Amino acid sequence: MVEFYDTTLRDGSQAEGVAFSVEDKLIIIEVLDELGIRYIEGGYPGSNPKDIEFFKRAKDMALKTATIVPFGSTRYPTYAPDADPNLAALLDTGARTVTIFGKSWGLHATDVLRVTTDENLELIESSVKYLVENGREVIYDAEHFFDGYADDSEYAVETLRAAAAGGAKCLVLCDTNGGRLPLEIQQGVKAAMSALPLPIGIHAHNDAGMGAANSVLAVQAGANHVQGTFNGYGERCGNANLAAIIPTIQLKLGIDCISDEQLQGITGVSRLISELANLPHDERQPYVGRSAFAHKGGLHTDAIRKNRLTYEHIVPEKVGNTQRILVSDQAGRGTIMKKIEKEYPNYDKNSPQVLELFNRLKELENEGYQYEAAEASFELLTRKVFNGYESFFERLGFRVIIEKFTDHSIRSEATVKVTTPDGATTHTAADGDGPVNALDTALRKALEQFYPALQTVRLIDYKVRVLDTKAGTGSKVRVLIEASDGEINWRTVGVSENIISASYEALIDSFEYKLYKEEDSVKKIQPNVL
Amino acid sequence: MVEFYDTTLRDGSQAEGVAFSVEDKLIIIEVLDELGIRYIEGGYPGSNPKDIEFFKRAKDMALKTATIVPFGSTRYPTYAPDADPNLAALLDTGARTVTIFGKSWGLHATDVLRVTTDENLELIESSVKYLVENGREVIYDAEHFFDGYADDSEYAVETLRAAAAGGAKCLVLCDTNGGRLPLEIQQGVKAAMSALPLPIGIHAHNDAGMGAANSVLAVQAGANHVQGTFNGYGERCGNANLAAIIPTIQLKLGIDCISDEQLQGITGVSRLISELANLPHDERQPYVGRSAFAHKGGLHTDAIRKNRLTYEHIVPEKVGNTQRILVSDQAGRGTIMKKIEKEYPNYDKNSPQVLELFNRLKELENEGYQYEAAEASFELLTRKVFNGYESFFERLGFRVIIEKFTDHSIRSEATVKVTTPDGATTHTAADGDGPVNALDTALRKALEQFYPALQTVRLIDYKVRVLDTKAGTGSKVRVLIEASDGEINWRTVGVSENIISASYEALIDSFEYKLYKEEDSVKKIQPNVL
Repeated sequence: MVEFYDTTLRDGSQAEGVAFSVEDKLIIIEVLDELGIRYIEGGYPGSNPKDIEFFKRAKDMALKTATIVPFGSTRYPTYAPDADPNLAALLDTGARTVTIFGKSWGLHATDVLRVTTDENLELIESSVKYLVENGREVIYDAEHFFDGYADDSEYAVETLRAAAAGGAKCLVLCDTNGGRLPLEIQQGVKAAMSALPLPIGIHAHNDAGMGAANSVLAVQAGANHVQGTFNGYGERCGNANLAAIIPTIQLKLGIDCISDEQLQGITGVSRLISELANLPHDERQPYVGRSAFAHKGGLHTDAIRKNRLTYEHIVPEKVGNTQRILVSDQAGRGTIMKKIEKEYPNYDKNSPQVLELFNRLKELENEGYQYEAAEASFELLTRKVFNGYESFFERLGFRVIIEKFTDHSIRSEATVKVTTPDGATTHTAADGDGPVNALDTALRKALEQFYPALQTVRLIDYKVRVLDTKAGTGSKVRVLIEASDGEINWRTVGVSENIISASYEALIDSFEYKLYKEEDSVKKIQPNVL
Repeated sequence: MVEFYDTTLRDGSQAEGVAFSVEDKLIIIEVLDELGIRYIEGGYPGSNPKDIEFFKRAKDMALKTATIVPFGSTRYPTYAPDADPNLAALLDTGARTVTIFGKSWGLHATDVLRVTTDENLELIESSVKYLVENGREVIYDAEHFFDGYADDSEYAVETLRAAAAGGAKCLVLCDTNGGRLPLEIQQGVKAAMSALPLPIGIHAHNDAGMGAANSVLAVQAGANHVQGTFNGYGERCGNANLAAIIPTIQLKLGIDCISDEQLQGITGVSRLISELANLPHDERQPYVGRSAFAHKGGLHTDAIRKNRLTYEHIVPEKVGNTQRILVSDQAGRGTIMKKIEKEYPNYDKNSPQVLELFNRLKELENEGYQYEAAEASFELLTRKVFNGYESFFERLGFRVIIEKFTDHSIRSEATVKVTTPDGATTHTAADGDGPVNALDTALRKALEQFYPALQTVRLIDYKVRVLDTKAGTGSKVRVLIEASDGEINWRTVGVSENIISASYEALIDSFEYKLYKEEDSVKKIQPNVL
């Protein structure tokens, strides 16, 4: 059995660009609890008003398996334990389990804390002891343990003895600077295990790209408590990524830590945390990225059609992910076939429609379109080629005016002209919070009376990529829009030298896709020319 | 000594979203050669016209240390070696060294190639032999070696013996599916080394997050040839990342592979390859990311001011990177001090200007600004607080009209009004390729006559981030602009619910920054109110 300790909310929020609101933190705790995480580190209780509010609200949560843990350090050298503000802040949270870190590396004792190495041992023991005497279970993080071990192995182990003497329940060895290699980690874990009878944990960082490996090899050496963050968020190169470590320990080391159902939730948890961190999900992430089981090369896609084990190290569904076949200019018609065979089972590689789709894709990719991240636009394109295009409305043009006045107020107005299902040309106008919103609003004005289904559609992500930076502000851009109707999400693409036009195109596709998916229940107008 | 074999151009281009032009490939070869890479895999010579053109042009390059290698497979079961189109394509490139892969896992022989395991051994031996007889040095990639070894260790080693019998000069063990763990890799490498007297290589993927660790542990087990890609590009979760592996082997295992000067070039090479791949650089990457030596937490920034070893696992300059101190609401005034102390040495934590800057930053971060990736805007803001704001021009407003006509043609027109250094209000108008380009052009019309230095400024990257996706198309956006004058690059930020206004703000900052940097040589107008 290995227990997982998540520090996304504390160490993870040290990452560049990451900041969680109190609401975000409470949602993350809920999903981590569902996932079967044993400990969730909430933050430094004393560091700012947000954290104080958070611990107050977190105390009332009804959790299944997780315990929320505040984090702090050993006492200040200048305070007695019972007068130390850090230790008091930990006790004030009311949490039954608390984590404190202390120094294992002489350099940090002398250069950062500015105490002798002996005084450091006393700081550790007395701090842990004070918390234990106050009824707390203490997890002890040995900061820089492996650097300290390389510098002076005897002293590093002494610091663990001090924490054990104070009554710590678990000793967590930290590779704080993230630069140690897996075999060094194994050596340190084994040394700690043979010196002390307590459970040993690992807290790794990724500065040499070894965060996940160091955590897994620590477990192979006997550690049974693993700290990390979701998506590897953390200072510098990040912490060890629990989204990579948990499936590896469960599926490859064969140690049952969470249930099969919980493991299937891990891709969703990882994505949700990206959303709340307001960062693009790292799609190349092991196990939980959209690319993790995506196949592009022609040889590989042929092989997995024969046997999916040939190029997949695990069954993606075990971690809640799925296989994807990508469309690209490296992919032959075989790849396209694999992608469309479910919808169009009666076509083969040599069907004229397949050839036309293949050629059309090459042209569009040359213009800057990419369908790897815009499956909804790909489906619409396929539909156009295979069944003839039947638009739900015909767009005739638009105009957008954005004006910023001397008093700094801004106005965005859009007008759109479309032919609606009744055959009439509708010309609508709307203001908006920005030009895309104005277009969106004007378009809905024209369409929602005919297609009420569009009322549920909302844009949930919007990305802009400059394609040829050599042309400066006149560069072509690709816009990706993710839309949702509350049940499913879909992605569309638009390309233009004009960001508004590219956005409009992706927006139109996102509406078309919704209507296409519900075509049986919505009216259609006559086919027109693209 | 360990030799590095780069496959960014072949395996790397299997990554989602990665495609290199022939020009890109030639530039990448030049910088990899400078870096001291021994082998550069160019692609499949037979797979498409781009690759054929590439090998033709690559043959004439004068390289210092690198050899360009074409990549292919063992012959088709149905062809004799001298009639096989794959082997012929390899010979046709004229390259002295070629790489071919063959199958080490019975499953692939029987399920993909559809031959018996004995026939597979013969395919391997005869293919290698044919290339050797034609005067080629052959690197043999044992595809799925570790999966094969786990399935049937005897047979996996047999396939290596077949390649050796054919005359291969090096046997590269591949973890093609990327799911094997470091200790399994060490076991496989040791088994191959004890069975055969040839140099052993490693080719790892990152599907369990172990790509770099597997490569480094293979070297520790005796491998002396390492294959990988830059930035870890590659199918699914990517290949082992040479940008992480090379510094680790050189600085941590202490094996001299390239010179100190070459190693200092690795951050630049990694960034250039991101640029050419047209992908955002992964800033959290070990060693070569902008965040790799960035410090945000207050405790850490205080410690590294005392001794930088305390939170840096290597000296960043060794890999051509630098330390950065980030500005964020977690950072106290100490962090801000560290960031500004060079420019403003006479202030301390308690100076009213430092306090004002600190408060202003908190406000702006609340509104959605982020200065971590926009140092130029941060410098301007600091300047405003410390020295009073002296604008080079005063902006009075703008208007942008974007019109898409029924014939699908688009027009973008911008007008801007600014007060120029002569005190007059200038009102200019311009068309553009898109609204931001129109604004850019109109603004230059107004300013360049006073500030010719702006003629050298061009926008080289443009990013848009939706901040609060709940508001759909009306969400606030943050625009980051990277500008360059050909000598240095700088980044600025703008935030608004209106993408055009946010872009305009970042654009203005990018012009202001250029003028601010050259203020001694340009005129200034009177201070005005922000």
